[in-house]
Amino acid sequence: MFHRRELANAIRFLTVDVVQKANSGHPGTAMGMADIAEVLWNDFLRHNPVNPRWINRDRFVQSNGHGSMLTYSLLHLSGYGVTIQDLKDHRKLHSKTPGHPEYGVTAGVETTTGPLGQGFATAVGMALAEKKLAQEFNRAGFPIVDHFTYVFVGDGCLMEGVAQEAASLAGTLKLNKLVAVYDDNKISIDGETPGWFADDSAARFRALGWNVIADVDGHDAGAIAAAFAAARQSQDRPTMICCKTVIGYGSPNKQGKEEVHGAPLGVEEVARTREHLGWAHEAFIVPDAVMQAWDARPRGEKAEAEWRTLFERYRTKHPDLAAELERRSAGRLPDGFDAAFAREADRILGGEPIRQPIRKASNRVLGNLLEGLPEVIGGSADVSVSTLAWTSAARSITPDDFSGNFVHYGVREFGMSAMMNGMAAHGGLIPYGACYLVFSDYSRNAVRLSALMGLKAIFLYTHDSVGVGEDGPTHQPCEQLVALRAVPNMSLWRPGSELEALVAWESALKREGPSVIVAARQEGGVFAHESSDIDGIRRGGYVLKDSGAKPDIVLAATGSEIGLILEAAAVLEEQGKAVRLASIPNGNLFARQDRGYQESVLAFGTPTVFVEAASPLYWYQFLKGPGTVVGVDRFGESAPGPEIYRVMNLTAERIVSEASQLLR
Amino acid sequence: MFHRRELANAIRFLTVDVVQKANSGHPGTAMGMADIAEVLWNDFLRHNPVNPRWINRDRFVQSNGHGSMLTYSLLHLSGYGVTIQDLKDHRKLHSKTPGHPEYGVTAGVETTTGPLGQGFATAVGMALAEKKLAQEFNRAGFPIVDHFTYVFVGDGCLMEGVAQEAASLAGTLKLNKLVAVYDDNKISIDGETPGWFADDSAARFRALGWNVIADVDGHDAGAIAAAFAAARQSQDRPTMICCKTVIGYGSPNKQGKEEVHGAPLGVEEVARTREHLGWAHEAFIVPDAVMQAWDARPRGEKAEAEWRTLFERYRTKHPDLAAELERRSAGRLPDGFDAAFAREADRILGGEPIRQPIRKASNRVLGNLLEGLPEVIGGSADVSVSTLAWTSAARSITPDDFSGNFVHYGVREFGMSAMMNGMAAHGGLIPYGACYLVFSDYSRNAVRLSALMGLKAIFLYTHDSVGVGEDGPTHQPCEQLVALRAVPNMSLWRPGSELEALVAWESALKREGPSVIVAARQEGGVFAHESSDIDGIRRGGYVLKDSGAKPDIVLAATGSEIGLILEAAAVLEEQGKAVRLASIPNGNLFARQDRGYQESVLAFGTPTVFVEAASPLYWYQFLKGPGTVVGVDRFGESAPGPEIYRVMNLTAERIVSEASQLLR
Repeated sequence: MFHRRELANAIRFLTVDVVQKANSGHPGTAMGMADIAEVLWNDFLRHNPVNPRWINRDRFVQSNGHGSMLTYSLLHLSGYGVTIQDLKDHRKLHSKTPGHPEYGVTAGVETTTGPLGQGFATAVGMALAEKKLAQEFNRAGFPIVDHFTYVFVGDGCLMEGVAQEAASLAGTLKLNKLVAVYDDNKISIDGETPGWFADDSAARFRALGWNVIADVDGHDAGAIAAAFAAARQSQDRPTMICCKTVIGYGSPNKQGKEEVHGAPLGVEEVARTREHLGWAHEAFIVPDAVMQAWDARPRGEKAEAEWRTLFERYRTKHPDLAAELERRSAGRLPDGFDAAFAREADRILGGEPIRQPIRKASNRVLGNLLEGLPEVIGGSADVSVSTLAWTSAARSITPDDFSGNFVHYGVREFGMSAMMNGMAAHGGLIPYGACYLVFSDYSRNAVRLSALMGLKAIFLYTHDSVGVGEDGPTHQPCEQLVALRAVPNMSLWRPGSELEALVAWESALKREGPSVIVAARQEGGVFAHESSDIDGIRRGGYVLKDSGAKPDIVLAATGSEIGLILEAAAVLEEQGKAVRLASIPNGNLFARQDRGYQESVLAFGTPTVFVEAASPLYWYQFLKGPGTVVGVDRFGESAPGPEIYRVMNLTAERIVSEASQLLR
Repeated sequence: MFHRRELANAIRFLTVDVVQKANSGHPGTAMGMADIAEVLWNDFLRHNPVNPRWINRDRFVQSNGHGSMLTYSLLHLSGYGVTIQDLKDHRKLHSKTPGHPEYGVTAGVETTTGPLGQGFATAVGMALAEKKLAQEFNRAGFPIVDHFTYVFVGDGCLMEGVAQEAASLAGTLKLNKLVAVYDDNKISIDGETPGWFADDSAARFRALGWNVIADVDGHDAGAIAAAFAAARQSQDRPTMICCKTVIGYGSPNKQGKEEVHGAPLGVEEVARTREHLGWAHEAFIVPDAVMQAWDARPRGEKAEAEWRTLFERYRTKHPDLAAELERRSAGRLPDGFDAAFAREADRILGGEPIRQPIRKASNRVLGNLLEGLPEVIGGSADVSVSTLAWTSAARSITPDDFSGNFVHYGVREFGMSAMMNGMAAHGGLIPYGACYLVFSDYSRNAVRLSALMGLKAIFLYTHDSVGVGEDGPTHQPCEQLVALRAVPNMSLWRPGSELEALVAWESALKREGPSVIVAARQEGGVFAHESSDIDGIRRGGYVLKDSGAKPDIVLAATGSEIGLILEAAAVLEEQGKAVRLASIPNGNLFARQDRGYQESVLAFGTPTVFVEAASPLYWYQFLKGPGTVVGVDRFGESAPGPEIYRVMNLTAERIVSEASQLLR
């Protein structure tokens, strides 16, 4: 049996050799956290490299993702499919070892990290998911869902506000199976942190309701193991293990300094580090005995096999629960979903169109759909009722009861969004979370990561424009719609009717990727749908109404502004104009349709007026001839919403006037 | 002498009567914090309602801005220009009393609040500005800059991550003249907070290095006064006074409940509250004696007069310092600024164009300009050297020495940006702060508030595109440029040469509003400027090169992509095409030019290719004829930057091919 330091050194030398070869990368973190990672992965982490998707695996997240070579080394050593060649391809095009760990690119990477603080918040979401699913599925003698979530964080993660938001909620919700490890090395890119980070982090986390294990020597395997063992005993508090470490541990001339953070050691220093740590092996060579000691496949297969045996007994005793867990883990909607959708559509198509706030329409269809969707876990950043995220089907999750389906996230938009990503990445749950559209700003980078990872997370935003009214410009979004639509792989809905809201939720619940649903607080227009509209809505845009074979003018709008183009159309039709009305509830989807379909809706070349109570920038791409965009490109005012619409010149008269100028 | 409760009740009844009349608004906070505000404003706050711009006034910020009636009542009662009619116009169009306090709309409002947590972070910036200016300008016997910054925060503010970031830095930097008051009423919009906010806030702030005065009865004037008196004695720590309060204090049936947070009490409950608190006066009537006791003008004028006397003695002893403080407080650049600009321009125009990273070019011109600009206070969110925000003129501010001009903000993009707003609003300083462009996401709402307030804050973003390379898609912006340009009142620069960078900094330093300067890590193209280009750059876009009288094709680009259109032009010219090259370093500015100027640059109707390594959405607005946008509308990859440009098809060949298609 070797000293475990030798096992940890395998991480260190894979890291320094790879970074040296790539001539770019971050060696310091992996060298500093190698001993901690070695203890966690070899003594505690319950996982199976042969099946990285085993649903009851412990989750491991490296929130300080720039030190990705730590994760890649661990995946290589423990038996995931990361080869030495993969390591040599670090930071090369289409490799399995990109600069930062990427979800979906590398088996064993549970979430994309790099944007600091978010990996931590995402891990909090995973721990929440575990606790929720455990309460839902476990039965006496059957701890089917029963795993830990481990997350490594650096100084940078702890400085970011998103980590505070998630940590505070994790403490409140008593997520005791969450174990964080703080790599307290007192170095960030600017140098020694005490000049800009003097928190007593242990005291801070205690104040947030955490079980804190302070002052652990992060290079003492015994102390580390004792800390993890203690952490796993925590009954009602998440655990933060504060480890004192030396960044770049083992590099005689560079350890403990900023220069080892984000640059190769240099050939000479690599050699000196070999000498210093007594690692006599050549670059990329890990002795067989070390590899064997690291190999987690035998014990992983055994652990999973034991769990499978348990699960089969569970299936016998609780066949419905077993089937339900399998369905949800596979990400399949229930068989009845399409029928529920059809019932809702029939209800809407069969009823009289009414004037109602769009958030209200969205709330109704969502509540009805949710009756049959136990996997959906809603929530809101403290504005449950004003966003109407709180539906007829909602029941609160509380610190002592996770049987509900609605998380009160508090005033924490960014934390909420990152936690939603964690739940979606965990599996078994589909999260939606709400706040006012303007405060999507607070959480933007989490929404972006959701799109980058292709997670099924649904961001519900209300209070969507100057229509917000009296709360004034701080609460009135303008640029947020174009900013969110511009995120690659985004699907943003701004429905203008209950039917459009229904299709938006259907799409969001089915899409393998995030969706944004923007549901205005103000009222939509009053108009009747044909059942054939459903197909058009699903394509992101369609002809709502045509007053003649060949339109003289096209008026296109989204959401609450459909009411305005309906009004304007009535005036123009009186003037003898053939008017086409197009609704484009999802510009992202519409932009992905083929040119023929787009043309069939927008009649390219025909004079066109786009109308949306927001920055006009998004719509110019669809103007292929004479036309204009009626939007809002300045900050709003504090006054009743309808009055602001008039002040902003967002009126049917304006649209008629713009159309008339185009037709002149 | 009346009981001070009566003075506080004036706030309560102005509030409930106004909110009742407006039939919209938030009475709970003002009623709950009235006693605290009364003690602060009547016993401690050093200000002069007759001159709201007195530079040595204490700053007061209500971060829980939805309770704006507290601020408006205080401004009315103490003698600022807010009249009863103004109060009656609460939340009406163009009133002095909009839904949330707005900087520039109401004299006495120091910063716009409402987006939770930010008022607090902005106040931290103000306290930093005070400490910096005090060290710079005060001399023995002359405490010319010597004021406190007071900030009120609610539960929502403390849940937001941005508050954590700013609080942590305030503790680290020992901002002892910052006094925060926590309105601990345990109510947020979703109801009683313990279900989602169980922090021990006193312990948290202690962990962040604050002087915490806990468990103060927020309705006991004596206890409140003692707390403020103690806070002002703190020598090396900011103070947090934790006040237990009852939201909606005085409303017999609604106090302590969520329903009093954001809705009128109702006519009957208003009457009961009058009875309960013994306030016999009619709506909007405050007895003369109460008004007189509140009037802060006599003591305010006296305080300012005393300070002016001191300042005149200071002027005699230190005439240069006095003149300098007056110049900077007035926001005037030094007389030598234009000459410094001209010297830099001459240096650049006189030199050989070289291939260099744009961040490097930006760094050089900034460093040279800063030699003569002591009011500029730079900083970076931990990436001082990789953003090159750290110039030849930079000296670090440290917790014990504020003589420098560079703040190490740590990994706190949002906190940094909100603090910059606080410094700009304070006056005497021009802040710039840097991070990677993709992480502007973290701070977006502070950038938005900067634009809403029209503050002179400069946001420097580097690592601006897929050109970032190996760090991969988490670090490669795509949608950020259009998202930032879409913010109303924004001025975003993406220079492509040292001269463009120089003009960008000139513009940003002169503009009464925020600017974003995006300085690529990658290299720009190599091309020579004419001195006449300066005027074109100042207009946001100009013709860089014309190969004939009437162009066959226009190629337009920004930043590092100018190199690409130069290459493409060479090929097209070889093919006999007349090519015009346009550089549009500031689309926001260019869009504000008259149509004739825009036409003179872009030759509308001529086939046009826009090129930018980012979401193409911004540029369609300028396409007034055949044309296309070559951009990036998907996430990047981890690989060397030039390789990604090829993978993304961002090449001169592509541009030539697009141009050729348009010319076919």
